[in-house]
Amino acid sequence: MRAVDLIRKKRDSGEHSREEINFLTSGCTRGEIPDYQMSAWLMAAWIRGLSRPEIAALTEAMLHSGEVVTFPEIAGKKVDKHSTGGVGDKTSLILAPIVAAGGVSVPMISGRGLGHTGGTLDKLESIPGFNTNLTLGDFRRVLGACGMALIGQTAEIAPADKKIYALRDVTSTVENVGLICASIMSKKLAEGIDALVLDVKTGSGAFMQKEQDSVHLAELMVETAQRMGKKAVALITDMDQPLGRFAGHSHEVMESLEVLKGRGAADLRDLSIELAAWMFYFGERTKSVVEGRVLAQTLVASGEALEKFKQGIALQGGDSRVVADYSLLPQAKSRAEVKSSASGFLAATNCMEFGVALAMLGGGREKKEDTIDPGVGLEFHTRIGDRVTAGETLVTIHYNSDAKLGEAKQRIAESFHISEQQQPDKKLIRRLVGA
Amino acid sequence: MRAVDLIRKKRDSGEHSREEINFLTSGCTRGEIPDYQMSAWLMAAWIRGLSRPEIAALTEAMLHSGEVVTFPEIAGKKVDKHSTGGVGDKTSLILAPIVAAGGVSVPMISGRGLGHTGGTLDKLESIPGFNTNLTLGDFRRVLGACGMALIGQTAEIAPADKKIYALRDVTSTVENVGLICASIMSKKLAEGIDALVLDVKTGSGAFMQKEQDSVHLAELMVETAQRMGKKAVALITDMDQPLGRFAGHSHEVMESLEVLKGRGAADLRDLSIELAAWMFYFGERTKSVVEGRVLAQTLVASGEALEKFKQGIALQGGDSRVVADYSLLPQAKSRAEVKSSASGFLAATNCMEFGVALAMLGGGREKKEDTIDPGVGLEFHTRIGDRVTAGETLVTIHYNSDAKLGEAKQRIAESFHISEQQQPDKKLIRRLVGA
Repeated sequence: MRAVDLIRKKRDSGEHSREEINFLTSGCTRGEIPDYQMSAWLMAAWIRGLSRPEIAALTEAMLHSGEVVTFPEIAGKKVDKHSTGGVGDKTSLILAPIVAAGGVSVPMISGRGLGHTGGTLDKLESIPGFNTNLTLGDFRRVLGACGMALIGQTAEIAPADKKIYALRDVTSTVENVGLICASIMSKKLAEGIDALVLDVKTGSGAFMQKEQDSVHLAELMVETAQRMGKKAVALITDMDQPLGRFAGHSHEVMESLEVLKGRGAADLRDLSIELAAWMFYFGERTKSVVEGRVLAQTLVASGEALEKFKQGIALQGGDSRVVADYSLLPQAKSRAEVKSSASGFLAATNCMEFGVALAMLGGGREKKEDTIDPGVGLEFHTRIGDRVTAGETLVTIHYNSDAKLGEAKQRIAESFHISEQQQPDKKLIRRLVGA
Repeated sequence: MRAVDLIRKKRDSGEHSREEINFLTSGCTRGEIPDYQMSAWLMAAWIRGLSRPEIAALTEAMLHSGEVVTFPEIAGKKVDKHSTGGVGDKTSLILAPIVAAGGVSVPMISGRGLGHTGGTLDKLESIPGFNTNLTLGDFRRVLGACGMALIGQTAEIAPADKKIYALRDVTSTVENVGLICASIMSKKLAEGIDALVLDVKTGSGAFMQKEQDSVHLAELMVETAQRMGKKAVALITDMDQPLGRFAGHSHEVMESLEVLKGRGAADLRDLSIELAAWMFYFGERTKSVVEGRVLAQTLVASGEALEKFKQGIALQGGDSRVVADYSLLPQAKSRAEVKSSASGFLAATNCMEFGVALAMLGGGREKKEDTIDPGVGLEFHTRIGDRVTAGETLVTIHYNSDAKLGEAKQRIAESFHISEQQQPDKKLIRRLVGA
């Protein structure tokens, strides 16, 4: 078998056998297939597409390129959630403690933010001392001690994905449902979980802006997980506006703590509870999703979920006093306001632009090497369907450097669409896939 | 400007500006754009295609990546011919001495064989001592002394093409008319010529098997040359069967010498004369192609063309006694015959397979690193339209090693299609483009 022939096959819209996918994946991981051949194949695959059997084969090849963790010493089911990412999406920080407090273990391997989306690891690291860089041994120990552990991808987990993703990132071959599915699922299936709840975002702040594309990706991921013997469901959820009221690292930690205290924005609370409810159901802790919802609400109301988060923070080296004292989190020095230029109703937002503006102000990464200013954030005062008056504040910007403040303000202002007609607020959960 | 954005643009079927093409070409040549990005762009360009302005920009960028030779010291026009390659295509060895004997200079930078096609350089090197590896200074001196010089691509000429072609070769991005046009024309336009005659092959032994694809490539190349202020024409010529009676390096040198002696196969002689006629017309040596044809025939009949070849061989270090004594050329030790299994008329050949079989026997390269056995060759006894009888010899194989003889014999035998109906012989020159 030769890489050049497999590249030609995909270039000419051919379908690879499992052996061919294995040859490409292991050859790339071991460095036997040079990057220039793999990137040509990736572009051919991006344009010509991958079939479901090819995606399944690629996922399994990437999964088995590294260690597949198991937790035989931990009783009960292990369940995780994965989101495709958006602006203000902080549900992991809320549902992991809720689900762990309910007795279902959550071994969560998360990613970092890039471009307009934030990353769970970056958000957690705004808590002083919080260490996401655990070894697999420490990950196992923390999970055993408190039922939740949140780390980044290690060298042992799916090294093929690490290698291939790095190539995709610099060759414009990221946004392809087959490659995205294989990348996500190879990592998630290596975590030693029994079930996976997927939050697939759709709308102007999501990677997949059209609902049909989000559903297609969701179907592929659910099918892949189920084929590997895992329970799986996908919620197609709204990303036509930010989730919750805040975007930015320490701001999102604060907002997550607010929800765990029974307060916070309704959309964020509702989605976190819904995802947790599915995790309870899949974790066989409740007999239904409805019961799972009640259990999740109870664990928030009783303060047990908040207490679990506090414990988790401490076990990963973080300063758990932040739970009570938000001033221990990084703060931005200055504030600026973006005001509405018109009166009417908020009809739509170009949500991705909020994430881009946040990154411009230092609250995100434009390139992988960038460092993040965790204190920078955006506070949204208006939701789609709300009445707004000209001159009313739409967004409060919390910033440290005013180098790109003017450009960021303009981007944000231009991303609100005010209409004379009132639009209903967007439905938060659009659809279920695989349920 | 960032390579990743240009890759995305081409991936999404966008059209590049001249500046973008220059950025990619010079970045790749200087090693500032890594191979893995260039190969992803090449695959996107292969699949999405390049527009005429993009092809023109790429050709010029590649041309100006290195030295553009001029010959102010040599009076008169300089004209070259380029063929897209096939089986038994040895016209360069015949027309270069004819045209030089007629007083038009032929500075020819040629290539090596790969796969089923032979290369002019390899054929010349079957002449003992013949050196195709001249410096640009020696190239200039030989051209001045005898009006013809035949060398390989030097490091100074179109280094971008060298780099990009090497990548295309290993990433299955060779067969694209835009990339082929830019590769050929960037080298040919760097030769210091005033005009170019193109021989674009079509049929079962050509890279472009469909006539419409050959015409498309011909149009692109002629247009590119004309835009750069060069006269250009393309002859679309038959490659549904080998050109002449022989394929294989020393055999093709012998057959070329036979034509220069006024003998040899009619198709090879006619095409060589026709191409030389165009070169005389473009070189302003004759007022028409018809006159050019007469001049070419005269120079063969008088022995002046043969004498010119002898002089050229000596000037490039070769043993010019081969002109009179073919036994000085490498010979194969053994012979085998491929016989017809049926009676009828030869209707068609799968011509590319003859080149593949020749390479299997050592008379060509399967990989760039392979060395060639110049004595190995195939002698064809039958042309399309000829009557054949079962048991009649179709091909004599001249070989040294019988390691793959059986396989080669079978490939050759299976590439002849015998029919009960007589087909007319193929028209040698199918069409003119740009005339």
